[in-house]
Amino acid sequence: MKVSSPMKKPYLLTPGPTVLPESVVTAFAQPILHHRSPEFEKLFAQVKEDIKYVFQTEKEVLILSCTGTGAMEASITNLFSAGDKVITVNAGKFGERWTKLSKAFGLKPVEILIERGQTLDVRKLSEVVAANQDAKAILFQAHETSTGVVLPTQEIAKIARDANMLSLCDAITATGAFNLPMDEWGLDVVISGSQKAMMIPPGLAFIALSDKAWSATETSTIPHFYFDLKKERKAHAAHQTAWTPAVSLIQGLKEALRLIHEEGLDNRFKRHHMLAKATRAGVKAMGLELLSEVPSPSVTAVRIPETLVNGKKIPSIMREKYGVTIAGGQDELTGKIIRISHFGYIGEFDITTGLACLELTLNDLGHKVKFGSGVGAALEVFSQEGLR
Amino acid sequence: MKVSSPMKKPYLLTPGPTVLPESVVTAFAQPILHHRSPEFEKLFAQVKEDIKYVFQTEKEVLILSCTGTGAMEASITNLFSAGDKVITVNAGKFGERWTKLSKAFGLKPVEILIERGQTLDVRKLSEVVAANQDAKAILFQAHETSTGVVLPTQEIAKIARDANMLSLCDAITATGAFNLPMDEWGLDVVISGSQKAMMIPPGLAFIALSDKAWSATETSTIPHFYFDLKKERKAHAAHQTAWTPAVSLIQGLKEALRLIHEEGLDNRFKRHHMLAKATRAGVKAMGLELLSEVPSPSVTAVRIPETLVNGKKIPSIMREKYGVTIAGGQDELTGKIIRISHFGYIGEFDITTGLACLELTLNDLGHKVKFGSGVGAALEVFSQEGLR
Repeated sequence: MKVSSPMKKPYLLTPGPTVLPESVVTAFAQPILHHRSPEFEKLFAQVKEDIKYVFQTEKEVLILSCTGTGAMEASITNLFSAGDKVITVNAGKFGERWTKLSKAFGLKPVEILIERGQTLDVRKLSEVVAANQDAKAILFQAHETSTGVVLPTQEIAKIARDANMLSLCDAITATGAFNLPMDEWGLDVVISGSQKAMMIPPGLAFIALSDKAWSATETSTIPHFYFDLKKERKAHAAHQTAWTPAVSLIQGLKEALRLIHEEGLDNRFKRHHMLAKATRAGVKAMGLELLSEVPSPSVTAVRIPETLVNGKKIPSIMREKYGVTIAGGQDELTGKIIRISHFGYIGEFDITTGLACLELTLNDLGHKVKFGSGVGAALEVFSQEGLR
Repeated sequence: MKVSSPMKKPYLLTPGPTVLPESVVTAFAQPILHHRSPEFEKLFAQVKEDIKYVFQTEKEVLILSCTGTGAMEASITNLFSAGDKVITVNAGKFGERWTKLSKAFGLKPVEILIERGQTLDVRKLSEVVAANQDAKAILFQAHETSTGVVLPTQEIAKIARDANMLSLCDAITATGAFNLPMDEWGLDVVISGSQKAMMIPPGLAFIALSDKAWSATETSTIPHFYFDLKKERKAHAAHQTAWTPAVSLIQGLKEALRLIHEEGLDNRFKRHHMLAKATRAGVKAMGLELLSEVPSPSVTAVRIPETLVNGKKIPSIMREKYGVTIAGGQDELTGKIIRISHFGYIGEFDITTGLACLELTLNDLGHKVKFGSGVGAALEVFSQEGLR
């Protein structure tokens, strides 16, 4: 007997938007606040304070009403001038965006192009830095979301500092996902977004600057208006924003930050590591290979076997037939990988659900997998790590 | 006996954020969608279609993840080049923003400065246009939110067209609030925001361009990246956005647009006109004067009598003692006016609530008002207009 039912529960295992905690969802059912009211200022003061913990910084974390690319643009247009040389690390689609952004505003990027799935070789970076001592900054990702690769952020920050360059870190799928202590590592700019480990919908971006980065804003000459970090810093000091902010998202952010504080960053990072380890064990048990040389606690990128006819249909079958949304590859990786996310409001049984669905889908496509093998490998990890 | 109770119901009568319909609030409790999924594309296709009705245009209305100032910036950086001359109409804080934005990106604005509370004299505009035939565009507000003044949009559009200039209309508190038929009046750029008549929280901005405005994007040379209208147009054609959009707000927008279609634009405009008329009647009955020469269906700006000691405390007393949030004046109008909003999800009894609270507050401050006089005058209007 074949069951055919219109009831298909949705599951979201993408690297952003990520699934929202129930208490964040209900936060959006609060009456909206006026942004020039004492109630908003009280809310904003608390959010500004609470978010520093997630960034592991004493600096002000500016909250902008845009998505991540807007904050990346803000860092370019507020810190540099046309003609400035910068070093960009292109390990995937988002590293490439640093290069495109730099060119769009007249900077001269020296790009380090890295094979997809590989991480940055710090010796290579040191060579490029030595050959370009006039560069103003190194622009990179802490985690390249398109390939699920972690980059050596602490080492990059040190190389930049030693060469008197700024380090600009896109941490959009890193902040709150794994350890990235901005102040301790001496990062000059850290950028993140709302719809990732911060567990709220897209529409806010976050950016924190070191004193050295703030100094650079004094000499920058690229025109900007909506993204004016000095104006935002001044407004934030009065618990306000330069322009009307996305109020409801900030209301949700307050609750999400409460949850992050309650869990504690250390526990959170351990949970993400465990979920990632279980996901890797699960896909390997199905005979699949990882794309990433240094796989991340945020996202696992898995190669689709070349022998698998119609392998590129995996994400659409998972979504349409079973209700589980994962991500495919982007640009040159389209049809070549799938990406399963495991950070934010994700628990053990979200991972077993994703793996169970992948087992069904692989068998549907003729890649025979023993049912329970992937899930079993993940459960093995959960049992051993014994976090709870 | 004095009642002292912690229960104070909140009422919002500000020109944005405006109060959210209940069904929009519950839309935010839906599971979040992935923005690269067929479900999102289906949602986005519908929203894109439904919003054209509100803009009264056949053109694509681009949906950007930012607040209104971001869309104003987009119109500057995508249509012009440094050195271009433009005419800006400064009838208040938002008109002044056009001038500041123009200067920020190297344009040469010729500003028409208008006394606060007055509207644009079209003869004056014609003179300025005649004296600056090399100007590329006229930048103005359909409604200057800071003073509650309506500008002669249809006439401005005609003057611009006759002079072969573009007309750029900030309609942030006008679109969906009162009649502003983009195509019929031949406006080249119309800009709006989510937290106004569109009845959702802040975080989205909207911009529609005429063919002539799209042509201008072909020769513009101001650097931009996040606000790339051509890239957005291409993405929108595939029911997508260039960057990750504010998904949850778009989910809410779908429901808000459904409500606007259900009410019908004509009914909506009549309702706003009636609410505005009742508000004006109410404040006049309390012996107060209007600021605005041409008062708007969106916001009523009322002068605080100079004789009223502590009159600038009206908004804070209304909010803190009674729970009713209205807006005060901005910049040079701080302490000189109050602004009561009456568009979007506002009904008759929101107006009587606002007026009743104002009666209480004026009496608290020693400006004696016969209780019921303001509310009574408003009820008189509702009774005569007999909309329901």
